[in-house]
Amino acid sequence: MTEPAARTAVSRPEARPIRSGAEYIESLRGRNLKVYLFGERVAEPVDHPVIRPSINAMAETYDLAVRDPELASAVSPYTKSRVNRFLHVAQSPEELVMQNKMQRRLGQLTGTCFQRCVGMDALNSLHSVTFEIDERFGTAYHERFKAFVAMAQRGNVVIGGAMTDVKGDRSKAPAAQSDPDMYVHVTRRTKEGLYIKGAKAHQTGCINSHWLIVMPTIRLGAGDKDYAVVGALPVDAPGIAYLYGRQSCDTRVLDGGEIDAGNARFAGQEAMIVFDDAFIPWEHVFMDGEHEFAATLVERFTCYHRRSYVCKSGVGDVLIGAAAAIADYNGVAKASHVRDKLVEMTHLNETIYGTGIAASHQATRMKSGVYLSDDMLSNVCKHHVTRLPYEIGRLAQDLAGGLMVTMPSEKDLRHPEIGALIRKYLQGRAEIPTEDRIRILRLIENMTLGRNAVGYLTESMHGAGSPQAQRVQIARAMQVEFKKQLALALAGIKPQETKEASP
Amino acid sequence: MTEPAARTAVSRPEARPIRSGAEYIESLRGRNLKVYLFGERVAEPVDHPVIRPSINAMAETYDLAVRDPELASAVSPYTKSRVNRFLHVAQSPEELVMQNKMQRRLGQLTGTCFQRCVGMDALNSLHSVTFEIDERFGTAYHERFKAFVAMAQRGNVVIGGAMTDVKGDRSKAPAAQSDPDMYVHVTRRTKEGLYIKGAKAHQTGCINSHWLIVMPTIRLGAGDKDYAVVGALPVDAPGIAYLYGRQSCDTRVLDGGEIDAGNARFAGQEAMIVFDDAFIPWEHVFMDGEHEFAATLVERFTCYHRRSYVCKSGVGDVLIGAAAAIADYNGVAKASHVRDKLVEMTHLNETIYGTGIAASHQATRMKSGVYLSDDMLSNVCKHHVTRLPYEIGRLAQDLAGGLMVTMPSEKDLRHPEIGALIRKYLQGRAEIPTEDRIRILRLIENMTLGRNAVGYLTESMHGAGSPQAQRVQIARAMQVEFKKQLALALAGIKPQETKEASP
Amino acid sequence: MTEPAARTAVSRPEARPIRSGAEYIESLRGRNLKVYLFGERVAEPVDHPVIRPSINAMAETYDLAVRDPELASAVSPYTKSRVNRFLHVAQSPEELVMQNKMQRRLGQLTGTCFQRCVGMDALNSLHSVTFEIDERFGTAYHERFKAFVAMAQRGNVVIGGAMTDVKGDRSKAPAAQSDPDMYVHVTRRTKEGLYIKGAKAHQTGCINSHWLIVMPTIRLGAGDKDYAVVGALPVDAPGIAYLYGRQSCDTRVLDGGEIDAGNARFAGQEAMIVFDDAFIPWEHVFMDGEHEFAATLVERFTCYHRRSYVCKSGVGDVLIGAAAAIADYNGVAKASHVRDKLVEMTHLNETIYGTGIAASHQATRMKSGVYLSDDMLSNVCKHHVTRLPYEIGRLAQDLAGGLMVTMPSEKDLRHPEIGALIRKYLQGRAEIPTEDRIRILRLIENMTLGRNAVGYLTESMHGAGSPQAQRVQIARAMQVEFKKQLALALAGIKPQETKEASP
Amino acid sequence: MTEPAARTAVSRPEARPIRSGAEYIESLRGRNLKVYLFGERVAEPVDHPVIRPSINAMAETYDLAVRDPELASAVSPYTKSRVNRFLHVAQSPEELVMQNKMQRRLGQLTGTCFQRCVGMDALNSLHSVTFEIDERFGTAYHERFKAFVAMAQRGNVVIGGAMTDVKGDRSKAPAAQSDPDMYVHVTRRTKEGLYIKGAKAHQTGCINSHWLIVMPTIRLGAGDKDYAVVGALPVDAPGIAYLYGRQSCDTRVLDGGEIDAGNARFAGQEAMIVFDDAFIPWEHVFMDGEHEFAATLVERFTCYHRRSYVCKSGVGDVLIGAAAAIADYNGVAKASHVRDKLVEMTHLNETIYGTGIAASHQATRMKSGVYLSDDMLSNVCKHHVTRLPYEIGRLAQDLAGGLMVTMPSEKDLRHPEIGALIRKYLQGRAEIPTEDRIRILRLIENMTLGRNAVGYLTESMHGAGSPQAQRVQIARAMQVEFKKQLALALAGIKPQETKEASP
Repeated sequence: MTEPAARTAVSRPEARPIRSGAEYIESLRGRNLKVYLFGERVAEPVDHPVIRPSINAMAETYDLAVRDPELASAVSPYTKSRVNRFLHVAQSPEELVMQNKMQRRLGQLTGTCFQRCVGMDALNSLHSVTFEIDERFGTAYHERFKAFVAMAQRGNVVIGGAMTDVKGDRSKAPAAQSDPDMYVHVTRRTKEGLYIKGAKAHQTGCINSHWLIVMPTIRLGAGDKDYAVVGALPVDAPGIAYLYGRQSCDTRVLDGGEIDAGNARFAGQEAMIVFDDAFIPWEHVFMDGEHEFAATLVERFTCYHRRSYVCKSGVGDVLIGAAAAIADYNGVAKASHVRDKLVEMTHLNETIYGTGIAASHQATRMKSGVYLSDDMLSNVCKHHVTRLPYEIGRLAQDLAGGLMVTMPSEKDLRHPEIGALIRKYLQGRAEIPTEDRIRILRLIENMTLGRNAVGYLTESMHGAGSPQAQRVQIARAMQVEFKKQLALALAGIKPQETKEASP
Repeated sequence: MTEPAARTAVSRPEARPIRSGAEYIESLRGRNLKVYLFGERVAEPVDHPVIRPSINAMAETYDLAVRDPELASAVSPYTKSRVNRFLHVAQSPEELVMQNKMQRRLGQLTGTCFQRCVGMDALNSLHSVTFEIDERFGTAYHERFKAFVAMAQRGNVVIGGAMTDVKGDRSKAPAAQSDPDMYVHVTRRTKEGLYIKGAKAHQTGCINSHWLIVMPTIRLGAGDKDYAVVGALPVDAPGIAYLYGRQSCDTRVLDGGEIDAGNARFAGQEAMIVFDDAFIPWEHVFMDGEHEFAATLVERFTCYHRRSYVCKSGVGDVLIGAAAAIADYNGVAKASHVRDKLVEMTHLNETIYGTGIAASHQATRMKSGVYLSDDMLSNVCKHHVTRLPYEIGRLAQDLAGGLMVTMPSEKDLRHPEIGALIRKYLQGRAEIPTEDRIRILRLIENMTLGRNAVGYLTESMHGAGSPQAQRVQIARAMQVEFKKQLALALAGIKPQETKEASP
Repeated sequence: MTEPAARTAVSRPEARPIRSGAEYIESLRGRNLKVYLFGERVAEPVDHPVIRPSINAMAETYDLAVRDPELASAVSPYTKSRVNRFLHVAQSPEELVMQNKMQRRLGQLTGTCFQRCVGMDALNSLHSVTFEIDERFGTAYHERFKAFVAMAQRGNVVIGGAMTDVKGDRSKAPAAQSDPDMYVHVTRRTKEGLYIKGAKAHQTGCINSHWLIVMPTIRLGAGDKDYAVVGALPVDAPGIAYLYGRQSCDTRVLDGGEIDAGNARFAGQEAMIVFDDAFIPWEHVFMDGEHEFAATLVERFTCYHRRSYVCKSGVGDVLIGAAAAIADYNGVAKASHVRDKLVEMTHLNETIYGTGIAASHQATRMKSGVYLSDDMLSNVCKHHVTRLPYEIGRLAQDLAGGLMVTMPSEKDLRHPEIGALIRKYLQGRAEIPTEDRIRILRLIENMTLGRNAVGYLTESMHGAGSPQAQRVQIARAMQVEFKKQLALALAGIKPQETKEASP
Repeated sequence: MTEPAARTAVSRPEARPIRSGAEYIESLRGRNLKVYLFGERVAEPVDHPVIRPSINAMAETYDLAVRDPELASAVSPYTKSRVNRFLHVAQSPEELVMQNKMQRRLGQLTGTCFQRCVGMDALNSLHSVTFEIDERFGTAYHERFKAFVAMAQRGNVVIGGAMTDVKGDRSKAPAAQSDPDMYVHVTRRTKEGLYIKGAKAHQTGCINSHWLIVMPTIRLGAGDKDYAVVGALPVDAPGIAYLYGRQSCDTRVLDGGEIDAGNARFAGQEAMIVFDDAFIPWEHVFMDGEHEFAATLVERFTCYHRRSYVCKSGVGDVLIGAAAAIADYNGVAKASHVRDKLVEMTHLNETIYGTGIAASHQATRMKSGVYLSDDMLSNVCKHHVTRLPYEIGRLAQDLAGGLMVTMPSEKDLRHPEIGALIRKYLQGRAEIPTEDRIRILRLIENMTLGRNAVGYLTESMHGAGSPQAQRVQIARAMQVEFKKQLALALAGIKPQETKEASP
């Protein structure tokens, strides 16, 4: 077990804020993280070709704030200065909408998951939850939390939110598992702080973060007190190991060239984090034992996070553009069925956007002053995200044509003899270079089968809760009794006759 | 031809505003309208059992403003006092959202089309269009128009918007039709005003209105100047005939009883209006010959009106409630597939709501000061309305069971002998009266096959433009070139190489 | 209670077979049935304008056999002569396919439910079930049953199958209901036969039949023996009352004219049958107490009957034709989106047909010699029928345009003055009479909202079992364990490691 | 250019038929093919780890015929002995159905494309087309063709059908292209035979074949005579190069281990074939200049081939099994929404099967004696294949959970330290080894994102014609005029009044 005394690494020198994507990338170097990929410890993640595209995507969140501060930054009530919007606590519904607009733009710019939303949504949900815990139990989490936020804002660091436990046997509560580590929990408490153990799965962008906020993932009971822990710790804190998740086509970047990767510059990142008695000092503990608030925190976080999937409409914009481009290259852009498929893709894509921003616009003010998006509409948005990108992807494959999965590799294209055959025979419209046609097809492959299909499809399905989780939440919020009364009134049925049966 | 001298009827004594639904209904009496239904002229529409439910629905727009003024009224910048929201020109995005919330509420209360949105959307679109015509041509329409609005607000009258012409041969422009009356047009102009001829089809609630605003329905060319006419005239002006449209199950109200009608109190109204040299004085003319603005007017009106279909989410609430009630009466409310269908219905219903209010929230300010909803999202909202109510209706029929279409009539239920058999054999859960079970089934029939299916389904399909009209508009707004550039950038294709082919 | 001695009515003089639709209609006269409609006993159903269209539809099953004997008749192994295919017991898979082809053709000819399939499917399922009961219990039902079939074939009568009980509290077995009559059951047995009591809901075409075969509707337990009864009795047997089910727009035929009815000649029929100690002689009893075979009978019947819904593809043909005709009349037949919608409607419609005939083609021979259609494919066919006609109907409404629900009545069209306005203003393409345009629109209304929407939509949903019933059956037949083994083999998982958890 | 004299390679010594999968694999060795993959010429495709899984899949077509001769072989009318069904010309509808059953079984066994259908469908279509060319032009293709078939049957070789040209500018006919090689064509004719040039894209299993049959891909005009060529040549004939198509995750097999590949043993194969004056002797020429029959050949081939996609229902069985297995491993197999998703997957999967076998059952006999499947139903089947596997795949991803795309690699699992963490933390139900859970997830990844997603999804979309091709064919076959007459008759419109406008 690692002692806190041994922890000399400090994630970020706070005096010097990160001002650009390039500075961000430099900030990640030399942290001596325990990152494992393909069975080996990675010496420097920043320089690993499989990892780097995910770092590039995160870096865009910095550069966008520089280029378009209205969109991607906001004035913090804590620092009184402009901070990256991902670190900002929303002071109005409009600021939640601005989050969505920033998310869509970043989706457009990267075509992938840029990984910084979890932290943003965690900050916003913890703002109200720490306030309400204090209100109930007289604790002092809220001030601690705001101090942490202000520190993060000043340093302009990346905060990852670590929620999803590995869960073990789904039918048992955390404390009832045969292995107590199936959910992250406190192993001991000292004067300085507490120690946690367990693992978090599906951790988006964790290795590219500076800080992690650990949170419970499920409603907890009185017996689960040690599992009711929220706290922040540096990514390079002792006692943490990262197991990099492999993705479809992740090794294409190792093949040489850049075409076959489809989107050579950007990708997402998912990893498993294993905590082996990692230390959190009390100043960074925001919940410890208040199990009554675990469900509240999860619900608020998912409420924000489900409408954060508006980012996928930005990714969808790229895919629609790619489909339009290949139709153009193939010389069929004006065919009515081609136009009609682009319209359908757009209709579906804007449905994600529309329901997402509606959820933000309809936000309500919490006691702590932060705004929380509308629960029903957030869930409706995310539920569409579990369906519509698949149909948009299907239509993109329709427009792409079969060549997307039957064409030779970039190495063949570069081969003197074979390359000439490819250029001759895979020519589309005369004025379009064959290589461009191949590049667009590889991008569509990337987004519907390859590395970024992971983010655009599968993560759309399961991130922020699988489809059934939204259905449960919609069921809770759907006001069946109110709607029954509407119907009874119009049907001329006297209200007193209604006997309640359904929940 | 009717001379203006003959026109003694004044639609409404302006000195006395209508203050309630009851007063509204009285205001409709004695107008001597030429209304035809089932081959006969209707003596007094207010007392006709087929027509009355549509008047009741409109009356709710008055009563709601009394009961819930925050929701259904607003302070007019013209009268400086609170006016019905249906007569108000939106001064902010929030006011457009409030329109939507009022629409949903009225859908919940009536389960049908309450018919007052067309006028509201016409007023809002004419506000900016008259302003812009004046700006370009130095005309004085905008002041005239505002005076008209103020008069309407003071009287609290119903304004119907008459847009859809009968169109004749769809392949020819208005002036090129073999019969010039296929689109409403000016037949002559005098010192006092102008005369119009033609017919408007699918006129929602026109007979229940006090004033009609006639508008063109299509982009017009220089040759179509006489068709570029906008003006207001009283519903009871000379030279107007109304041909009442028949609806599925419209005569059930004539059968005696009230159960079989399903929703005995409320219904929609569609009629064809025939103008035979009807007169409009200059003070009520808001466009005359400025054909360049016909398309603008149509586009702005449909932009507002397509997101006005949020009302259907209120109607959907009733249908979801009815489906939940019958599941409860049948004793299967807790079956997982039943719950799941209610969730799906809700998810779809909220999609209409979410995309609609998103369109309103994202409104932009026009030069005249009115706010116009977002074009893309308005179209996306309406396009969902052409699909989702059908699926919600299908699921409601699934939950209803076959009895909805096989059970005997109310007269059988009232029959001493047969009624006893029905009560015995059509019993569901013991504590629920069989009659209540029948009533809810008749309501679902009403909304999926009967009179209000007309509004919930077919009008959802075609009102404010058929599906293809939305697809055309989505195609225009979908920014294909912008999206292609996003894709090319990520695919590593140099932008200068892109040759434009698609529009 | 009615004594058997009182039963002098004989449904059909067997010596003289019915040879045509006209003779069939005559055969229904003078039966003195107790039919109730709109609170009154109907003197002669044959002459009732609301009932007659359903009789006309049934009559087509006779005339088709005359016009196209290959399609609609077959050689009976019992009479050795050609009999109506609806009375024939299938001797091969090809004969089941021929049933489907006949069903589709009759759907095309009538645009509605022609009501004779239930009897056909009942005969085919009882053939094997009576055989297997005898085999197990040494009873003699099979011979009795074949004698009954031969009699029916010789007389060429209509046999209705009465299965669906009213069911009362769905959570309780028949014998456990508080009212024992919620399921049809034997009240007493005499030397001559047995007496039954109870009611059957949703009885398709029962009043238009000559004989009814009563069958249980649910799996029965040892305590439900009196409910395990199958027997045939004449429609005009004493102790039976018929409560006619009202349908959307059923009274349009009473309005005068024929246009507004949409399909003036044909309609379906659903009624509730109430048995009040109705008598069945032993020679017509085919099950009495063998509760073990109730579920078998229900499953075989639904297996046949679910693929009998292929008839809806014939009705769909009419609706596709109507949609194509109105597009033609509107002058938009060549628009690409119009063509595309017709293609989609066809694709969906042929899916019903394809899965239905596949079920018939894949039939297996039962011990008794009859062929039973494939269970999985029969269920897949019917499950599509619960979805696809709704989408086909939606697309038909899309192509129809809003006029379908806003145009005036036939009486207005016939009015000298108003009629002229309608003809002038509702003109489509110049060479098409306005009346024809109206007629086609009324047909589409009839099939999507009106009287035949009952059969095309709601009955498609619930007939032969509601959607969930098919899903239960698909779940039973889907061979999860077999498919898991396929997956484990390819994933390289050793089979012995699989621990079974799911059923 | 290669002279025929130089062609010493003979594809297969015909005297010795291939009797098993193992013998088949051996038969492919030492052919000195010019196969390019990743920019290098492949020394021996049989031993290339990326290629071998596709050879294994083809080998299953041999082994199945040994294990289950009823299913996978048939008695040839030419050799009078039992031959592999893939080489058999169908003598009855039942034999077409047996093709489908064999295809489904092979899909179940391999979880991928086994590549032998194109040749089967080419043989069956050429049987009737060569017969009809001879009938019209007095040529002798049919006998030549039958001799070739008999030779292939005796040797039990694999025949690939090469149809899809690379097409160049889609708006121009073959002879009108700026580069004449955009469609394969005859470059010269000698006494011995003819020479062809051009390229065929998306060639399924071509490298794994012994013979290729080259066919035109499009309707040809009188100016395209040199493009109207059909002929067979050995895969190892001089003048042919193969450019291997890369697939999603194709290099996972190179990573070491077998888990990450998902389905390590089987995969599909797509390559581009380039013909550079390849020679075909006259005895193997089956069309030369009869351009009138090009469209006929294409239509018949696609008719067979579209219903050959029934194979995907076999692949779907594997995916359903995998989804059921992971639900079981996760301990949620009994959750109602899980069961319901498996039911939906099955319903969709059986729809492919049902419509496919219906097409085969409804086959008609051609003049040559071969049976041709039903055109409408074949297209309906394939059109479903362009949609339903995507939805089945989506549901499989739903059931799989996010771990599918976030879990570490097999190398991590094999790492002593990290492997232990993975086993601890990715445990599902206690009795299931973590490795098995990972294996099933990798199989689902393989089928929905990885190597076999190419075949299950993208190839399902475009193989045998993209979706629009089926819609065109459905439009041709949908009998609009017949259906309009049905509607007019029921609407009471006199037939003579119908003026034809639509095609």
